[in-house]
Amino acid sequence: MQPGLRLAELVQHLGGQLIGDPDQIVVGIAPLEHSDAGSITFLSNPKLRKQAAATLAAAIIVKSADAEFLQADYHGSLIVVDNPYACFARAAQMFAALRQIPPVPGIHPSAVVDASAQIDASAVIGPLVCIEAGVVIGAEVQIDAGCFIGRGAQIGAHSHFHANVTWHHDCRIGQRAIIYSGAVIGGEGFGFANEAGHWIKIPQTGGVLIGDDVEIGANTSIDRGALTDTIIEDGVKLDNQIQIGHNCHIGAHTAMAGCVGVAGSANIGRHCTFGGAAMVLGHLTIADNVHISSGSMVSRSINEPGQYTGFYPLAKNADWEKSAVIVRNLDSLRDKVRAMEKTIQALTAVTTTK
Amino acid sequence: MQPGLRLAELVQHLGGQLIGDPDQIVVGIAPLEHSDAGSITFLSNPKLRKQAAATLAAAIIVKSADAEFLQADYHGSLIVVDNPYACFARAAQMFAALRQIPPVPGIHPSAVVDASAQIDASAVIGPLVCIEAGVVIGAEVQIDAGCFIGRGAQIGAHSHFHANVTWHHDCRIGQRAIIYSGAVIGGEGFGFANEAGHWIKIPQTGGVLIGDDVEIGANTSIDRGALTDTIIEDGVKLDNQIQIGHNCHIGAHTAMAGCVGVAGSANIGRHCTFGGAAMVLGHLTIADNVHISSGSMVSRSINEPGQYTGFYPLAKNADWEKSAVIVRNLDSLRDKVRAMEKTIQALTAVTTTK
Amino acid sequence: MQPGLRLAELVQHLGGQLIGDPDQIVVGIAPLEHSDAGSITFLSNPKLRKQAAATLAAAIIVKSADAEFLQADYHGSLIVVDNPYACFARAAQMFAALRQIPPVPGIHPSAVVDASAQIDASAVIGPLVCIEAGVVIGAEVQIDAGCFIGRGAQIGAHSHFHANVTWHHDCRIGQRAIIYSGAVIGGEGFGFANEAGHWIKIPQTGGVLIGDDVEIGANTSIDRGALTDTIIEDGVKLDNQIQIGHNCHIGAHTAMAGCVGVAGSANIGRHCTFGGAAMVLGHLTIADNVHISSGSMVSRSINEPGQYTGFYPLAKNADWEKSAVIVRNLDSLRDKVRAMEKTIQALTAVTTTK
Repeated sequence: MQPGLRLAELVQHLGGQLIGDPDQIVVGIAPLEHSDAGSITFLSNPKLRKQAAATLAAAIIVKSADAEFLQADYHGSLIVVDNPYACFARAAQMFAALRQIPPVPGIHPSAVVDASAQIDASAVIGPLVCIEAGVVIGAEVQIDAGCFIGRGAQIGAHSHFHANVTWHHDCRIGQRAIIYSGAVIGGEGFGFANEAGHWIKIPQTGGVLIGDDVEIGANTSIDRGALTDTIIEDGVKLDNQIQIGHNCHIGAHTAMAGCVGVAGSANIGRHCTFGGAAMVLGHLTIADNVHISSGSMVSRSINEPGQYTGFYPLAKNADWEKSAVIVRNLDSLRDKVRAMEKTIQALTAVTTTK
Repeated sequence: MQPGLRLAELVQHLGGQLIGDPDQIVVGIAPLEHSDAGSITFLSNPKLRKQAAATLAAAIIVKSADAEFLQADYHGSLIVVDNPYACFARAAQMFAALRQIPPVPGIHPSAVVDASAQIDASAVIGPLVCIEAGVVIGAEVQIDAGCFIGRGAQIGAHSHFHANVTWHHDCRIGQRAIIYSGAVIGGEGFGFANEAGHWIKIPQTGGVLIGDDVEIGANTSIDRGALTDTIIEDGVKLDNQIQIGHNCHIGAHTAMAGCVGVAGSANIGRHCTFGGAAMVLGHLTIADNVHISSGSMVSRSINEPGQYTGFYPLAKNADWEKSAVIVRNLDSLRDKVRAMEKTIQALTAVTTTK
Repeated sequence: MQPGLRLAELVQHLGGQLIGDPDQIVVGIAPLEHSDAGSITFLSNPKLRKQAAATLAAAIIVKSADAEFLQADYHGSLIVVDNPYACFARAAQMFAALRQIPPVPGIHPSAVVDASAQIDASAVIGPLVCIEAGVVIGAEVQIDAGCFIGRGAQIGAHSHFHANVTWHHDCRIGQRAIIYSGAVIGGEGFGFANEAGHWIKIPQTGGVLIGDDVEIGANTSIDRGALTDTIIEDGVKLDNQIQIGHNCHIGAHTAMAGCVGVAGSANIGRHCTFGGAAMVLGHLTIADNVHISSGSMVSRSINEPGQYTGFYPLAKNADWEKSAVIVRNLDSLRDKVRAMEKTIQALTAVTTTK
């Protein structure tokens, strides 16, 4: 039998008001359309009320505004909360915890761990991991197979490094971090001086300093600072394939979708969001609560919150070719318009004078 | 002496009609312009007929339409087929097989393999590989050094994982897969609910399900689904540095060039192609046989086959600056044009009335 | 006490003229605004002269044009050179060398090294490294933990591979290379022939050939050639997350910022620069001294040196939506303008005739 949770347990953890049977057991979460009698679902969007009323789910997480409507037609239980989607996320976490295979603390014999590393007894160090001198690893940290942790690094309690993460020397992260495979933290920034056409390397002697509750996606890279640290504040969420240049500063609770690139020394505010493949030039400042659409290039600082966009609209190739030619010659079109304006003014003068 | 193949052997394998000496031996393939007396080449493009007639190659793979022309001037052998380029690819595979160092089945002593993993006796498990519990690995699979294969994963016969691949728990792939180094399959998707400015993680409990004959490039990442699986159908070819978000569905025989990004829950048809760095927003549907040009952002669903493009045309920087300013203010240019139209109509009325 | 350098030592190494105390000791470098009495700084930009005059630094690296100005107000030492920024980079290298923990030559017992590999006695091979048959590793090379070096590869003296690099068989690099973590060199290029909707793999039997003084960033991938080699000349600097396709040729001292993508067989000149996320289509030729702005798509060959740009300007989302609609329909706007021109000509004729 699948392990499940009583609705009473869920409500105790999630908060909210239960309308229905506290002893009803649910074994998993599901979206509205895929729910069955063992699952709990949620309703965020009032437009889906009718669909929700017809769901097979044992229970629905709803706003109070929707609860009344549902009570008429739906015969399962309701959990009434302010933010059903966030509640759904927390419920999903509860079910995931229920199914998690508890890791066994200890250091796998194939791991290569320097004697000077301080590893909490509750931590799990996987096979073929390499941990260098002076590393400090907190309680219940999990470092999966093949990770490299460079000398002097510090990893806060309850953090989880998936397999094959590269974490360079002296980089620090807070508690409850999740770092995905292939991520490279603390590589040297891209800094050179040009001398007679040759590039002279500028050593990168800063570090990377990361707060609590940060996630870093697969194959994402964050460079260490040149002289001072690259800084990622609490609650930042970075998706896969992201590049963060040296000495960037990313404010708390900012989230970036896959393939975003941020050039060096960009200073990004709190609570910002970046759509996939958005790019940010170096040395810019971006205010709090700025939202950049996917595929947009941020080439100047942004001082005002809001949504910003800049990508060429997709078209059938033949149509794009026409518009692209005109875009390349827009100044001649504009000049033509200006010339016509003058001619028209002159004509108007002549015509009205007559 | 280099190992070679008789033309008769080649034709037996490739199909087609041989015009020439079946006992002629060729030791390798080469493009038209770099061929020598030991090589076989091909002619796909009729514009290169003259160049082909002058090649030093011992044999040419051609269409029948070109064979007649070549017979006049070229004194080597011809292999006449319908699709010379595809035949050339197969011939190249034969020569590559000839030169391949046959791997020795077995598990390297430095690999860490869980006792419950089922590994076919003909498989090759390289040094420093980690294979977790319950993994199933098929016949003649090759897993190179440093790979990680998470618990419950399944890998079909004749698949080859290059060094340092990360393959997460419960992800499955069919036969004849090639996975390149640094690829990360089955990392957790980027899913969060926002609650009062903080991101609440939505656990990603789906998997990744991949068909037969799939290639996945270096440092490419494919996320596992949130509740259901991310799906990659048969024959899909993904180049390097690609990001595929959670719950995407990519139809059979679709190919994507390097640096492409596909956001979560995109539903992409069969036989599509994506040029380098093309980007696809989430929750879109793209029909079969859609072709997206490099550097284009797909921001809406596409229901009709064809070629689609959307990138800003490159120009000298000074010219771009001019056109970019006008693009930003295009609505004022358009308004000006509209105003002029009205004025002209009025003028025309006045002038013709007079 | 921090180790330091006498100004006389610095000048001996850097060249230039010292105005001040040769026995003054400095312990580090810093930007103008963060300098203290133990640090040396530099002045490149004459606009910062006043700020420089007020710095707390013990010494400033300056051009002769600025030295005179500074001598009036600034009481520390001056090092007068032609290129202060390059000198600063070299000074930074001296301080970094001073602080470096000298690596201990030898092969870590956990490394798996083929007996036929030729590894210089002065090289450092880290934990859990895999080195295949026939590899040649030069003097004072450092290969960090978890790297994979495929059979027949050659690595020149004084090169440094950071942890978890994947270096495939038969790829060669010169002296003083720095390869960052997660880089994949020599994966197979993306080459297929299409046959009735299926992709037939073209084996990639070329290699990757790389010169001296090359840097390759974290998670960057460079594919091996199809029949001949992919070539990277001396002094090329590649940042993180870059993709270089098969058979590309990149000229000496060209630098590419993060997230750049170059499709197969592109031929790029010397002393070029590519801003972040710039993309280059395949089979193009780009002249020497071409500079591509960030986020620009190079879709045609470039024969003339200069700066080139092509990205859609960022705007508030509402403004972008307006301009994007017009861009998609630019040909109708242009047609309207053309029609108006004719009407105006006709009107002008009528009006002036009257």
